[in-house]
Amino acid sequence: MKKFMNENFLLENRTARILYHKYAKKMPVIDYHCHIYPHQIAEDKHYNTISDVWLDRDHYKWRAMRTYGIPEKYVTGDASPKEKFMKWAEVLPYCIGNPLYHWTQLELNRFFGVNEPLCPETAERIWNKCNAVLAREDFGVRGIIKHSNVEIICTTDDPVDSLEFHEILKADETFDVTVLPSFRPDKAVNITRHEFCGYIEELSKVSGIEIKCFRDLTDALDKRLDFFIEHGCRITDHALDTVEYGDEDVVAANETLLRALRGEKLTPEEVAVYRTTLVLHLARRYYDNNIVMQIHIGALRDNNSPMFDRLGPDMGYDSIRDDKVMEPLRNLLNTLETENKLPKTVLYSLNPAHNEALMTLSACYNGHGVECKMQFGCAWWFNDQIDGIVKHLTAIGNLGLVSKFIGMLTDSRSFLSYTRHEYFRRIVCNLLGDWAERGLIVRDIKLLGKIVQDISYNNTKKYFFE
Amino acid sequence: MKKFMNENFLLENRTARILYHKYAKKMPVIDYHCHIYPHQIAEDKHYNTISDVWLDRDHYKWRAMRTYGIPEKYVTGDASPKEKFMKWAEVLPYCIGNPLYHWTQLELNRFFGVNEPLCPETAERIWNKCNAVLAREDFGVRGIIKHSNVEIICTTDDPVDSLEFHEILKADETFDVTVLPSFRPDKAVNITRHEFCGYIEELSKVSGIEIKCFRDLTDALDKRLDFFIEHGCRITDHALDTVEYGDEDVVAANETLLRALRGEKLTPEEVAVYRTTLVLHLARRYYDNNIVMQIHIGALRDNNSPMFDRLGPDMGYDSIRDDKVMEPLRNLLNTLETENKLPKTVLYSLNPAHNEALMTLSACYNGHGVECKMQFGCAWWFNDQIDGIVKHLTAIGNLGLVSKFIGMLTDSRSFLSYTRHEYFRRIVCNLLGDWAERGLIVRDIKLLGKIVQDISYNNTKKYFFE
Amino acid sequence: MKKFMNENFLLENRTARILYHKYAKKMPVIDYHCHIYPHQIAEDKHYNTISDVWLDRDHYKWRAMRTYGIPEKYVTGDASPKEKFMKWAEVLPYCIGNPLYHWTQLELNRFFGVNEPLCPETAERIWNKCNAVLAREDFGVRGIIKHSNVEIICTTDDPVDSLEFHEILKADETFDVTVLPSFRPDKAVNITRHEFCGYIEELSKVSGIEIKCFRDLTDALDKRLDFFIEHGCRITDHALDTVEYGDEDVVAANETLLRALRGEKLTPEEVAVYRTTLVLHLARRYYDNNIVMQIHIGALRDNNSPMFDRLGPDMGYDSIRDDKVMEPLRNLLNTLETENKLPKTVLYSLNPAHNEALMTLSACYNGHGVECKMQFGCAWWFNDQIDGIVKHLTAIGNLGLVSKFIGMLTDSRSFLSYTRHEYFRRIVCNLLGDWAERGLIVRDIKLLGKIVQDISYNNTKKYFFE
Repeated sequence: MKKFMNENFLLENRTARILYHKYAKKMPVIDYHCHIYPHQIAEDKHYNTISDVWLDRDHYKWRAMRTYGIPEKYVTGDASPKEKFMKWAEVLPYCIGNPLYHWTQLELNRFFGVNEPLCPETAERIWNKCNAVLAREDFGVRGIIKHSNVEIICTTDDPVDSLEFHEILKADETFDVTVLPSFRPDKAVNITRHEFCGYIEELSKVSGIEIKCFRDLTDALDKRLDFFIEHGCRITDHALDTVEYGDEDVVAANETLLRALRGEKLTPEEVAVYRTTLVLHLARRYYDNNIVMQIHIGALRDNNSPMFDRLGPDMGYDSIRDDKVMEPLRNLLNTLETENKLPKTVLYSLNPAHNEALMTLSACYNGHGVECKMQFGCAWWFNDQIDGIVKHLTAIGNLGLVSKFIGMLTDSRSFLSYTRHEYFRRIVCNLLGDWAERGLIVRDIKLLGKIVQDISYNNTKKYFFE
Repeated sequence: MKKFMNENFLLENRTARILYHKYAKKMPVIDYHCHIYPHQIAEDKHYNTISDVWLDRDHYKWRAMRTYGIPEKYVTGDASPKEKFMKWAEVLPYCIGNPLYHWTQLELNRFFGVNEPLCPETAERIWNKCNAVLAREDFGVRGIIKHSNVEIICTTDDPVDSLEFHEILKADETFDVTVLPSFRPDKAVNITRHEFCGYIEELSKVSGIEIKCFRDLTDALDKRLDFFIEHGCRITDHALDTVEYGDEDVVAANETLLRALRGEKLTPEEVAVYRTTLVLHLARRYYDNNIVMQIHIGALRDNNSPMFDRLGPDMGYDSIRDDKVMEPLRNLLNTLETENKLPKTVLYSLNPAHNEALMTLSACYNGHGVECKMQFGCAWWFNDQIDGIVKHLTAIGNLGLVSKFIGMLTDSRSFLSYTRHEYFRRIVCNLLGDWAERGLIVRDIKLLGKIVQDISYNNTKKYFFE
Repeated sequence: MKKFMNENFLLENRTARILYHKYAKKMPVIDYHCHIYPHQIAEDKHYNTISDVWLDRDHYKWRAMRTYGIPEKYVTGDASPKEKFMKWAEVLPYCIGNPLYHWTQLELNRFFGVNEPLCPETAERIWNKCNAVLAREDFGVRGIIKHSNVEIICTTDDPVDSLEFHEILKADETFDVTVLPSFRPDKAVNITRHEFCGYIEELSKVSGIEIKCFRDLTDALDKRLDFFIEHGCRITDHALDTVEYGDEDVVAANETLLRALRGEKLTPEEVAVYRTTLVLHLARRYYDNNIVMQIHIGALRDNNSPMFDRLGPDMGYDSIRDDKVMEPLRNLLNTLETENKLPKTVLYSLNPAHNEALMTLSACYNGHGVECKMQFGCAWWFNDQIDGIVKHLTAIGNLGLVSKFIGMLTDSRSFLSYTRHEYFRRIVCNLLGDWAERGLIVRDIKLLGKIVQDISYNNTKKYFFE
C-alpha cells in the first residue's frame, strides 16, 4: 500500500521513479498556453489570502462546489475569502476521483509546504499557513513563477491588446522569465456574437485602419500580428468550437462582413465562408512568419443563460460538443497544405471520443523533414486528469510518435497551477516505466530519460522557438 | 490466483474488501428504475421453474443464445422451459467476458445456493435445485424481494395505468417494501408511432378529458401526473432516443397534434416542435411537484423488422445510436433553467462515447445549493458491465463528484436481478480501494465507508425522497 | 521486471502463458483479408534487401518516418534501400508506444533470427543478417508464407481481375497453401470518382457485357462474381467510408448511372440511392451464394492533395472519419434481413468510438441458428495495436460472445506481417488468462484452450469455409 501522495505519487514502478526523479523533475517549465494576466506579473502582484489566488478565477473548483451543494454566495458571491476557503475545505474530501483533489494537495504542498490533506479539521491551520507564506515579500506572482522553475510563459492575448505589460516585462532586468504574447483573433472570427461590431471598431482604432471591408479587416489583423511578432509572439490560438468549412471566397466574406456591420442576420453558410476565409488568410500569415497555430475544437459554451447573464463567460457553465469535425477540418488543413502554406499546427480536442480521429488526421500533414509538424495537443480542460492524459498519450503513442510530443501547458488562470506540469511528467514517466517493466520496450534508461526530458521541455523549446 | 467468484469477487485489494464487507454490503436496496410488473408483486407470483423467472423476458440472454447459434425455438419459441434452460447452460461457458456470465452465477448462488458453475454437466442438478427453492412457499416474488433487502421499488408505468396494484400493495400490511409508480409518458410524446391515435383515445378515457387539442392533452397528462403523485410517484421517465429541439410553440404543437389525429404525415420539424413543447410542459410540472425527470438517450430500437413483426418490441433487437445530442439537449435544459423550472434530472446515455460530453453538460445546471441536482445516470443497458460501470464512474469522478452519485438500478424485467446492485457496489468499492492503495486518495476508511454507503443508498434516498 | 519481448511477450500471467504456448501458438493461420499481390506468390518473388520487403509499401512506417522528420527522399523517394533502412533504424527507438515498434522486432526475430533491438548501432549488422536470409533459395515469398504456418490466404481483388495467378497457384502442386480471391467491387459503387467511367469500360470488356444501363452493370458484376466463386472466392469486401442510405430504386439508380456515364454532376441523394441499390443487389447475390460480406466503415482518405497527386492513394495520408453511421447502416442491413437475404457480414469500424454502437447493431441480426452470423471485425488499421485490440475484444465480450469471434487478419501489403496473428493471439491469451486469474471466469484450461484455438483458427475456418 502506497502512502498518500508521497514523493513517488503516480510513479508506480521503479523505472518510472528513476525517470521522474533523475530526468524529468529538473527540467524547466515552458508554459506555452495559459490565461494569466501579464499585468499581474508586471506589477508582481501579491495576494492577501489563499482564496484570492486559488478560488477567485477557478471555474473548476466552482463547478465542484456547486455540485456538492454549496450556495453561490460561497462560490462567486459576496462571502468572505475565508468563508469561501472553509467551504472548499468541506468539499475537497468528496472530490476523490477528480483532478482537483490532486491539484489542491500538490499546490498546498509545493508552494506552501502543507503536509496534511485539506479538510474541515485542518482548514484553519492551512488557511493561516498559506496566508503567512503569501505575505512574504518574495511570494508575489514573480516569486511563485520562479519557484516553479518556469523559463517561458506564453499568455493569451487579443489582437487589440497593447502588450504594454509584455514590454515592461521585457525591459525589466530583475525578472529573467520570458513572457510572450499569443495572438488569439477569435473576436474577429466570431462574426455572429453580439459584441462583434464593437470589436471591429476597437480593432479599427488600435490598428489605425478604419475597417470598412474585408480587406481592411485582414490588413488590420496583419498589422496587429506584425506588432505581436515584434513583441516575441511565437504562437496563435483559434477556438473553433465548431469546425465548419465553406469554400474560401473573399468577395462573399466581404459581403458578409458588411452585412454583419449593418446588424443584419447571417445564414450559417455565409458565416462558414466568412470564418473559413478569414482563418485561411491568417493561417497563411502564420506560415509566412513561422509561428504556430493552435486550434481548440469542441467546446459548447455558456450553457446556463441565467448564470451567463449574471456572471459572464468562463464561469463554469461550459461543456463538450459532439459535432462532426473531421471532414471540414480536413478541408481547412488540406487547402493550406495544397498551397504549401500550412503552419505548424496544434489540434486540441475537448471531446475525448475524437482523440483517435484527430490524431490520425494530424499525421497526414507531417512531412517536409519537419519534426512532428502537426501536434495533437495535450489533454485539454475537462480531459486534464490522469485518465484523460493517459488516453491522450496512448492515442499519440499508438497512432504517432509520443516521443515527439510537445507536452503540457497549464491553460490556467491561476499562478499556482504550474504543478500540473509535474502532474503530467509523473504520468508520462509512469507510462514509459510501465512499458519498460512489462518488457514492451527496451529498458534503456538513458534513451527513456532523454525522451521524458524531450516531452517535458526539449520538444517544446524546439517546436515553438527554433 | 483468485478463486472463481468467491466472497471477494471483484474486490481486488484489501481496502476494497473492507469497504464492501463492512460498509456497502449491508445497505438496503432502492431500485429506483425497473420494468417489473407490479401485479406480480401484488399477487406474490410464484414461478414453476428457473426458466420462467430467468429466461422468459430476458432479452440479454436471448441475444447471447442467438449469437451462439441456438435456434429461436429454444429462445422465445415453443420449446419446454427445461429445454430452454439446457440450451442456456450450453451457452453460458462461452459467455466469458459478458456480464451475463457473472449475473447468472450471482443469481444462482445468492438466491438458490448454487455453488458450482452452470454448464451442461451441472445443468440437471442446478435445474432441480433451483426449482425446489422456487417451490417453497416463501419464495414467491415477495420472498425474492425481501431476500434482496429491497426497501423501495419504483416501477415504470404509463400515464393511463390504473395503479390498482400499487394501491393494493400500499394497503397490504403484510408487505413492507414500498412500491411506487413512475410516470413515463413516452406514448404521448412519440407522435409518429402508429399507435399514437389509439393511445390518445385511451388517455382521453382514463383521464375523463376528451383530447381534442394540445391543451386537452396537457390537461389530461397533468391530471394523470397528479394521480400518480397521489400514489407516491417521485420519478418520471422519458426515452428520448434522439434529442431534437424545436423552439417551443403551443400553437404549432396544437396544429401538429390535430394533423396527427387526422392521420396526416408530419415533417421532422413539426415533430421536433411538438415533442419539445410537450416535454417542456411536463418538465415544468415535474419541477413544480419536486419530482425527478429521467431522460434516456441514444437507443436505436427495433432494428430487425421480421423479428419485430413476430415478437414485438424489447426482444433483443435494439442497439446504440450515434446521433448528435449535445446542442439540442443543452437547448432543452437551458430553456427550463432560464425559467427556473428545471427539475432534478438524471441523464442516461446508451452510447458510452457520449459519457464525457453528457457529464460535462449535466454539471452546468448544478447550483441553487442543491446537492448534485443533475445526475449522469448509471451505466445503462448495454453498458451495465464491469468496463461500462468503471468508465461511467471514472467519467463522473474526473468531471464531477462521484461521491454524490445516486448509484445503481436494475432496469430489469426480472425479480432475480437485484444482485446487480451487489455487482455495482463491489465495483465501486474496488475502484475506491484501488485509489486508496495507490496513494491517490487519503485512506480514511471511515470517510470512504461513508461514501460507498452514500453511493449505495443514502444519496439515492436523499435525491428522490427528501 | 520482464525481459524485453522474450518468449512471454504480452503474456502477463501464468494462465496466459499456458494458453498461448500450449494452445494458440500451434494453430495454422487463415489470413482472410490482406492486400498482397498474388502474382508475387505465383512467381515466388525473392527480395534483394530487407528494405524491399519491409519499407516499400508500408505506409505505417512511412507515417512514422515523416513524423520523426525524415525527408521524403528516404521515405518514398529515390534514396537507396540501405539509406532508407538506416533511416528507419534511426526512427524505431522513438516509436515506443507504437505497434510498429513491436511489429518490427517480431518480424526481425521470427523471420531473420535477429535477437537485438534495431537502432542505429545495430542497423548495419541487422541489414546484413536479414539480406543474407533473404538471399536464401528457400526464402522467397512462398518460403515466408510456409514459415508462417499459413493455410489459407484471401487476397483482395477487383471484379475485373483475371485471377490468372490464382489459377496458376491452384494448379501448382508444389505449393499447398490455398490462395483465394476476394471480390471488392468498390470501383463500381464509387460513382463519383473520376475513374468511374473508365472503370465501367474496363468492366464491360472483361465481362463481355457492354454496360449501357444499370441492369447491364449488375449483370456484368454478377458474371464476374460467378467467375470469382468458380475460383474459390468465399468473401467480398466493401469500403463504405461513409454509410449513406437511400431507398432502393432501380429506375433512379439507372438514371444516375446514365448521368454519370455522360459526365454529369450528381447530387448526394442520387449517389446514395445508386450506391444503396447496387450494394443491396450484390448483397443478395452474396447471400444466395453463401459467401461473406465485409464492410469497412469510416476511413477519410487522401487528405493530403499534394502528396496524393505525387504518390497516389494508400501512401499514408488517410485518417478516421466521424460521420453518423448507425441509422443508415441499420436500414441497409434491415432491408436485407426483411427479405431473408442478409449474408454473413463482418462490420469493421475505423473509428473506435463507434465500437459499442456497431457491435450492438451487428448482434441484432444474429439468429437462424447460425453461429455468430454477424461479426464485428477485428481492430482495423489504426486500431491494430494492443489498446485497440483489447478495446475491440472487450467490446465484443461485453456486448456479445468473444468466444465466437473469427479473429485476426493482416490487412497487409507485406509478406512479413503474419506475425500480427501471433501478436493478436498473445493479446487474446493474456486477456482470458487475466480474467481467469482474477477469479472472473472459471479457470478451465481445457475450455479456455479450446476458445483461444477457436478464435485463432477454428471459428474462422467454420465461418468462411463451411
